Amino acid sequence: MGTALIILAAGKGTRMKSDKAKVLHQIAGAPMLVHAMRAGQVLEPDASVVVVGHDGDAVARAAQAYDEDVQIARQTEQLGTAHAVAQAAPALAEHDGDAIVLYGDTPFISEATLLRMAEARKSHDVVVLGFDAADPGRYGRLVMQGDTLEKIVEFKDADDATRAITLCNSGVIAAQSKELFALIDAVGNDNASGEFYLTDIVEIARSRGLSATAIACDEAETMGINSRAELATAEAAFQERARAQALEEGITMPAPETVHFAYDTVIGRDAVIEQNVVFGAGVTVESGAHIRAFSHLEGCHVSRGSTVGPYARLRPGTELAEDTRIGNFVEIKNAIIDEGAKVNHLSYIGDAHLGEATNVGAGTITCNYDGVMKHHTDVGKHAFIGSNTMLIAPVNVGDNAMTASGSVINKDVPEGAMAVARASQVNKPGFAVKLFEILRNKKLKRDKGAE
Amino acid sequence: MGTALIILAAGKGTRMKSDKAKVLHQIAGAPMLVHAMRAGQVLEPDASVVVVGHDGDAVARAAQAYDEDVQIARQTEQLGTAHAVAQAAPALAEHDGDAIVLYGDTPFISEATLLRMAEARKSHDVVVLGFDAADPGRYGRLVMQGDTLEKIVEFKDADDATRAITLCNSGVIAAQSKELFALIDAVGNDNASGEFYLTDIVEIARSRGLSATAIACDEAETMGINSRAELATAEAAFQERARAQALEEGITMPAPETVHFAYDTVIGRDAVIEQNVVFGAGVTVESGAHIRAFSHLEGCHVSRGSTVGPYARLRPGTELAEDTRIGNFVEIKNAIIDEGAKVNHLSYIGDAHLGEATNVGAGTITCNYDGVMKHHTDVGKHAFIGSNTMLIAPVNVGDNAMTASGSVINKDVPEGAMAVARASQVNKPGFAVKLFEILRNKKLKRDKGAE
Amino acid sequence: MGTALIILAAGKGTRMKSDKAKVLHQIAGAPMLVHAMRAGQVLEPDASVVVVGHDGDAVARAAQAYDEDVQIARQTEQLGTAHAVAQAAPALAEHDGDAIVLYGDTPFISEATLLRMAEARKSHDVVVLGFDAADPGRYGRLVMQGDTLEKIVEFKDADDATRAITLCNSGVIAAQSKELFALIDAVGNDNASGEFYLTDIVEIARSRGLSATAIACDEAETMGINSRAELATAEAAFQERARAQALEEGITMPAPETVHFAYDTVIGRDAVIEQNVVFGAGVTVESGAHIRAFSHLEGCHVSRGSTVGPYARLRPGTELAEDTRIGNFVEIKNAIIDEGAKVNHLSYIGDAHLGEATNVGAGTITCNYDGVMKHHTDVGKHAFIGSNTMLIAPVNVGDNAMTASGSVINKDVPEGAMAVARASQVNKPGFAVKLFEILRNKKLKRDKGAE
Repeated sequence: MGTALIILAAGKGTRMKSDKAKVLHQIAGAPMLVHAMRAGQVLEPDASVVVVGHDGDAVARAAQAYDEDVQIARQTEQLGTAHAVAQAAPALAEHDGDAIVLYGDTPFISEATLLRMAEARKSHDVVVLGFDAADPGRYGRLVMQGDTLEKIVEFKDADDATRAITLCNSGVIAAQSKELFALIDAVGNDNASGEFYLTDIVEIARSRGLSATAIACDEAETMGINSRAELATAEAAFQERARAQALEEGITMPAPETVHFAYDTVIGRDAVIEQNVVFGAGVTVESGAHIRAFSHLEGCHVSRGSTVGPYARLRPGTELAEDTRIGNFVEIKNAIIDEGAKVNHLSYIGDAHLGEATNVGAGTITCNYDGVMKHHTDVGKHAFIGSNTMLIAPVNVGDNAMTASGSVINKDVPEGAMAVARASQVNKPGFAVKLFEILRNKKLKRDKGAE
Repeated sequence: MGTALIILAAGKGTRMKSDKAKVLHQIAGAPMLVHAMRAGQVLEPDASVVVVGHDGDAVARAAQAYDEDVQIARQTEQLGTAHAVAQAAPALAEHDGDAIVLYGDTPFISEATLLRMAEARKSHDVVVLGFDAADPGRYGRLVMQGDTLEKIVEFKDADDATRAITLCNSGVIAAQSKELFALIDAVGNDNASGEFYLTDIVEIARSRGLSATAIACDEAETMGINSRAELATAEAAFQERARAQALEEGITMPAPETVHFAYDTVIGRDAVIEQNVVFGAGVTVESGAHIRAFSHLEGCHVSRGSTVGPYARLRPGTELAEDTRIGNFVEIKNAIIDEGAKVNHLSYIGDAHLGEATNVGAGTITCNYDGVMKHHTDVGKHAFIGSNTMLIAPVNVGDNAMTASGSVINKDVPEGAMAVARASQVNKPGFAVKLFEILRNKKLKRDKGAE
Repeated sequence: MGTALIILAAGKGTRMKSDKAKVLHQIAGAPMLVHAMRAGQVLEPDASVVVVGHDGDAVARAAQAYDEDVQIARQTEQLGTAHAVAQAAPALAEHDGDAIVLYGDTPFISEATLLRMAEARKSHDVVVLGFDAADPGRYGRLVMQGDTLEKIVEFKDADDATRAITLCNSGVIAAQSKELFALIDAVGNDNASGEFYLTDIVEIARSRGLSATAIACDEAETMGINSRAELATAEAAFQERARAQALEEGITMPAPETVHFAYDTVIGRDAVIEQNVVFGAGVTVESGAHIRAFSHLEGCHVSRGSTVGPYARLRPGTELAEDTRIGNFVEIKNAIIDEGAKVNHLSYIGDAHLGEATNVGAGTITCNYDGVMKHHTDVGKHAFIGSNTMLIAPVNVGDNAMTASGSVINKDVPEGAMAVARASQVNKPGFAVKLFEILRNKKLKRDKGAE
């Protein structure tokens, strides 16, 4: 009864000039294939089949990384779109609901459009997605009679009247699953390129007395990507929409054109995102948080009242509680920073937990890697980590404890204790002046030697 | 005899989707309210009244932060612009000069325009600011007869001939102070929305035999801001003007579109501003200084011959003398850096003074915060601060003194002395190899345990 | 038999509002003069003469920095283009091949265009470069008769028919060297501005029975630069072309509009260049390398499989072998990093060599400067440099050796040894709590004193 997604992702994409399959190239931090798969989720599919070909293992891995239940069908020869869809037939042999054919290189079909296609399926056997083209060029034309799709005519076969039609074929098509495969079985390859075209099923369906219709979506949704330049254009289009939506939702951005969102970035109202901020995948920023300029965030959560940056890097697994402060030239990775804690300058906090209201001085480093394994650092509440403290993990610093600046801490520090690990200062009178004299003489000698 | 500014700043700005009052949203680092207040200074006002309403306390604080002498009038109900202006009457009861009505959400009225309005006031009782609209849409139209402003006609009341007029009403209006309030007293609210409109005073003035005129300014000046998208557009417009002006003044910017100015940034001729530089409020950069890529400056002064960045952050209170060098991943705050001093890499210098020609090694930190108070660091001339020196403030390092790399300095260092605070190096033969073996075995064990 | 380049670079460029000569202003990291000189190399010149005037010494230095064999001619008075070219005559007295006149402020003439001019010279005595102007404005017009250039008519002398011509004069001109100077000798200055115009040689040549022709190039190539705004426009044009070409060549750039190339940047297919990357001169990035956001590279080489950034700065002399990893807030200068080595966080590596698979911990600094001289650091293979290690150069760390976190290493570390230089940790129970109490009381006292 559910819907099956069939996503075609077998093409090579020669014009990308890449060793990587075309559908693996990313938009907003996710492979374009994943964008297509994500959009399809609105149909609550009970099966998904990705048809892979070129670089098939890598494409399969990317598909499975997004959806572990996805089925992979392999198209070993590229014999056309109908042939590609046919490869999904065995995987859907038992499937009894609808099937919709999507494309791994057409990432922008909207959820609303897919829902409209599902709706249209209630009254028609075959539903094709069209778009009103500003410049129809060499696209196939959809010939409508009322709300009936009479046929799809390829540009080269079209007469002048047909070429005047601006409703063009996107290739996206929906039908009852078994019906779809039955129609595909009847598609021939008696054409110039000797390929089996999916679009031919419309005419076959009509000849069998089935009804067909088309719905139209915005041309931007059907944008296919075939080159790096088109990929960059698609990314720019994504960002433009994301920025406009963020403004619309009440986010403050003095220079939205310099903010780069990921496909899944979530930001709350009245958050401030300054200039030149890059969001990788998996970021949530709460209302009223402040992300300062030149910050880079991936896989992290920033709670309300917290300030990040400028020049802060939050890596995956960073969880900032409310009212924290992560300052400049600070890297945080896989760490929980509790309410009101501060790491203001030039520090690396990885694999760690910092307790409430703890202050971490400049130049502090959690030495989490011993060359073989990673270890955890735990710092309690209201602790004061002196500047340039090395926390040799695994290590614990208790609540209200303190470390002296410049200390290497390789033993636990009890609650309320002060840990010191440093040599005493000795001043050698006149020594700096003498040393400089010696060094300058050395240099003179060396420079003479060089003559 | 002077002029009074009446600045309307009571609106909520629902379309901003913000908990913050609309006029507090910033353009180029200053609330838009402050832009309006700043422009008004060209009239050398002897009184300023800001009419606040929604979020009134915060708006009042922002107004007073800019001008401590500003008077605040509160409009508790929003009953229209005439009503808003009327709230300013008590504050200006003794005022005998001109009054001009400005808007907190119309930040770009130029000084030249305000001076032209003042000039026009010499020959007319009421002066209205108009603008020639490219698309007049639903703006009120200014009906002129020679240089006499006959009336202001709202769009909905306008016949076709009037709608063909492109000179539109900005809402900015000037008159003798007492006259203005007298006219406002006569404004009624017998209209569809039941509000008291300031524009009605033109007709009332004319009926009383007073003269009225309008002057026109560029449409860009009268841009009002009602949404985040309009705010972003206004910011972009500001930046575009600032960048063009900077180029015009002889500043070198390879990528001006990536440089973000504040409302008060001052930069000298032949200064170089590289890519991706952000200026916060209060920055002055002298001729011939060089700000490298990815730098962030706020509240600081950079003298000629100095180089900043890439990736340098200058925070408020930073004063760089001539020929200084602040390098990458360096943060300076509230510090005076004397001529020829260098802080080239990965350092934090806060609450400090560095003497002439002093060299600060990489990884140096002024430990200015003891967890409760901030303290000062003073370093003399021609000193050499070794890499990774911790300067525990309050502390003084004398002229020509030196600190050994990796030292924690918590006592003053006399002139010419060398301060050392570190343990001696011990090499343990073969120990690294053994340790790695142990760690690798541990890991193997752990990994097995995890199976 | 070879070609001589004559490059005019004597102008002041008043509209640049700069103390620096116009032709020294940079596009994509090179003076515009150098762009013109570089383009000319396609003709394999056997002589190059740069005619300097304003700020002549600095211009000469820049020309010689690019090509040490360049000859400098000085134009002490600016009496027009023909006069400028004439200054090159003594330097080319023995020259027997072609000469072509280029302009130091016209940096975009393409190699293809110059080759087409050389080709045209085979059949004509004088070859002028023209361009089809979208808006011919006040440019001089090229009057053609078939492929013969009849004359060049200045705008002010042109009748309506001539003004309708869109083929305009770029000023670039080629002829046999001795012929060129002979023609120039005949140029007079009997005109409104009293200058000697190079364009006059066409008419003189024709009157002597010599043949002249013009070829047309794209208007963008002949763009001359006279102000900062035009310089910024030229830079933007350069970047737009470089970005499009990089995409075309198969480089992945999610936001090409934020990537800034130098004139000589070389990047391999399938390299990834993230957002906000700045390339200075002299960078090569191999296929499959990954330059992350906010990175800044100059004079360096990044091999395949290596990842740089985010926030990495590679300075001149950096050589990254395959599969290296340079992470955030890391600066590398004049250093060779061998295969698989890692410098992941907050470090400065200068004047150094890191062996294969060596891992450098966060906060590590090569202390390469003793206040007078720079010294070298050498680290072997498979070494492990603990976090916050100070390597006091000159110093060697052997293969498989290790340094303990927080150590200052001023003696060589033998192969396989562990070097430790640090004080032992002492925990003082309850001391942190007491210290905070003392500090808080101090503050209370101080605050009271301040009342």
